[in-house]
Amino acid sequence: MDLSRCSLNSMTVPSLRLPELVETAVAHGIPAIAPWRDIVDDVGTAKAARIIRDAGLRVSSLCRGGMFTADDPSVRRAALDDNRRAIEQARELGAAALVLVCGPVVGRDLAGSREMVFDGISALVEDARAANVPLGIEPLHPMMIAGRSVITTLGEANDLAERVGDDVVGVVVDAYHVWWDAVIEHEVARAGKRILGFHVSDWVVPIMGELSSRGLMGDGHIDLPRLSASVTAAGYRGDVEVEIISDSLSRRDPHEVVRSVRERFVTHV
Amino acid sequence: MDLSRCSLNSMTVPSLRLPELVETAVAHGIPAIAPWRDIVDDVGTAKAARIIRDAGLRVSSLCRGGMFTADDPSVRRAALDDNRRAIEQARELGAAALVLVCGPVVGRDLAGSREMVFDGISALVEDARAANVPLGIEPLHPMMIAGRSVITTLGEANDLAERVGDDVVGVVVDAYHVWWDAVIEHEVARAGKRILGFHVSDWVVPIMGELSSRGLMGDGHIDLPRLSASVTAAGYRGDVEVEIISDSLSRRDPHEVVRSVRERFVTHV
Repeated sequence: MDLSRCSLNSMTVPSLRLPELVETAVAHGIPAIAPWRDIVDDVGTAKAARIIRDAGLRVSSLCRGGMFTADDPSVRRAALDDNRRAIEQARELGAAALVLVCGPVVGRDLAGSREMVFDGISALVEDARAANVPLGIEPLHPMMIAGRSVITTLGEANDLAERVGDDVVGVVVDAYHVWWDAVIEHEVARAGKRILGFHVSDWVVPIMGELSSRGLMGDGHIDLPRLSASVTAAGYRGDVEVEIISDSLSRRDPHEVVRSVRERFVTHV
Repeated sequence: MDLSRCSLNSMTVPSLRLPELVETAVAHGIPAIAPWRDIVDDVGTAKAARIIRDAGLRVSSLCRGGMFTADDPSVRRAALDDNRRAIEQARELGAAALVLVCGPVVGRDLAGSREMVFDGISALVEDARAANVPLGIEPLHPMMIAGRSVITTLGEANDLAERVGDDVVGVVVDAYHVWWDAVIEHEVARAGKRILGFHVSDWVVPIMGELSSRGLMGDGHIDLPRLSASVTAAGYRGDVEVEIISDSLSRRDPHEVVRSVRERFVTHV
């Protein structure tokens, strides 16, 4: 894919603080970034927004809101407050979307947990509309269901977005999380204009832990050009985030990592 | 669930050889076992069959056939030969089914790999009919797609069994592999009489590796009574296998493990 659509997610180079992430993206000709909130909070949202704007970068998304599931109603209310702060941050940063990682299963109640996610997203619709910040439901790999998200397939995310029924709620397609799904191309087509983001990395084995085993595009088993083509065919024209959460990559020199990201983005996405 | 339907899968107590597995099941009043082929080969199929028969145990399944995917056609042919030997072993043991673990993705060709699985199973239908050994397609958790199986959901397994279109081919429902699926109850109902086995364990976190992180029933996040009820409602009345592949359990005394299995089977399945 052309580098003009490349966005560098901060978790690909987790040792960098926000000013360094911005400098690195600029130095390597990458036109967009996707910061996680920790590095935004670290310098403050207003300053982060200024640094990014002054550098002429786009913000493909802010990661992350969500975490709607909890037994205790006061914990769920606190999560909504935190989501409202995230929406406000996303607005200040001019982020194209706020990514929602919806929250893990509560005890053994999968159906109940999924209802909490619906309730949580529904409660944020007005805030998101007022701030003009689209909310992107990101299905996570089923292996993360007890740690991060009960929304495990793009089909579920589509159902959920349809059920909420407001244009401000869409979906995010992360190749790592959904590539295994036998109906992924059907669900990407179904998502259509609802797609708010497309994230790339690769599936490399062995899985050394749920979260941090990802590989550089081209190093694993995902047919990224094929998925990429289906996302484009569905109408998505926004930035494509490189989000490679990897213990081994995080130990390498960030500039070296970003050089590889650049190269692989053009040849393998 | 009543202990009269309990089957002890050999991987729950991997330190035991077949004669010891049989003795242990008998000592604890468990009426069935499910041996993996390694422990059958170890004593020879005829002798294994005699030991099991003399002890009055049922064999809920033989684990495993499958592994249909490979780039090299000669490797795929060798896999079919091996499957034919497994069918013959299952027949000699009087196993209620041969479990199929269908094989990992070949390179980046997920669709092609799934076609190899269809071709492989189709090629075995006559042998399975002749031996009167049902073949049970077991969908594995999507995290195992590059190591063990491109068939990742019960929906896929149902589609595949329907497409093969012969009563000798059915599906196996392993709670660990499919519990996360938002449409699992629908697919269990759809599977109906096609269900050849039901396996239980629990999902405990963190996942320390794809294969061997399972927990005792009741220790994790799976609502087993609910899944169990749906499998029963679908018409399955056969043995229920306890298959807990766990690095930590395998270090414990097998008798202690089987006492816990017995207890949890009654209280948590």
